[in-house]
Amino acid sequence: MELLEILECSPPLTREPLDAEQAAGVARVFKALGDPVRLRILSIVASRAGGEVCVCDVTDAFELSQPTISHHLKVLKEVGLLTSERRASWVYYRLVPETLGELSALLTLSASGPTGRPADEPVSPPSAAAAAVPR
Amino acid sequence: MELLEILECSPPLTREPLDAEQAAGVARVFKALGDPVRLRILSIVASRAGGEVCVCDVTDAFELSQPTISHHLKVLKEVGLLTSERRASWVYYRLVPETLGELSALLTLSASGPTGRPADEPVSPPSAAAAAVPR
Repeated sequence: MELLEILECSPPLTREPLDAEQAAGVARVFKALGDPVRLRILSIVASRAGGEVCVCDVTDAFELSQPTISHHLKVLKEVGLLTSERRASWVYYRLVPETLGELSALLTLSASGPTGRPADEPVSPPSAAAAAVPR
Repeated sequence: MELLEILECSPPLTREPLDAEQAAGVARVFKALGDPVRLRILSIVASRAGGEVCVCDVTDAFELSQPTISHHLKVLKEVGLLTSERRASWVYYRLVPETLGELSALLTLSASGPTGRPADEPVSPPSAAAAAVPR
């Protein structure tokens, strides 16, 4: 769960710059999401009412081989977006909501959140602020 | 702004599966975020109080050449996360909050939203549900 810890410790992008370690961790998760098939697979698992999807159901939704689907599922597992459990002949996948929630929080606009700057607060460019304060 | 429109039309991943066109558009944006340097650049611009960052300030934050930084900025612009404006000798970058907000909404856990399943509703795995229902 090291990657989830990095996500948990990373501030929203609009609050402060990420450091190198945070950026490396977060980028791994976004990279996993940067593929259309993986995004569709994730949305199939994430939106499933029972919360669980058999690998066979995922394979049926695409015109792709099962090894290809399995590879994409493995990538989503490696970054902590999915977990899996083998039962009898099939592997069942489930969303890790914490990871998705942390990602969403990272991209939240702080201006609209309770801890951010109010949206209607005037923002002065640094040069104007510097000019207004005598040194 | 075609990509932003795709984001606006894409449902949260936990609500329903993305279709192929939605997934292709959304994946482009996540792919742009799937690089540590681009994430750090985006967080520098997004968290800047004045809302605007000179390309020279971004370059100073990394031990990378200006062409490399410019390439990353271009990728972030192409997916609609940043806009730029040239003034005198420098180019200034600014966050497009709508794009970030739409991405965040895509990853929102519907269980915590008004349209989703309540977070405290018990979820039975399909196997348990099947076992409980005589056939």
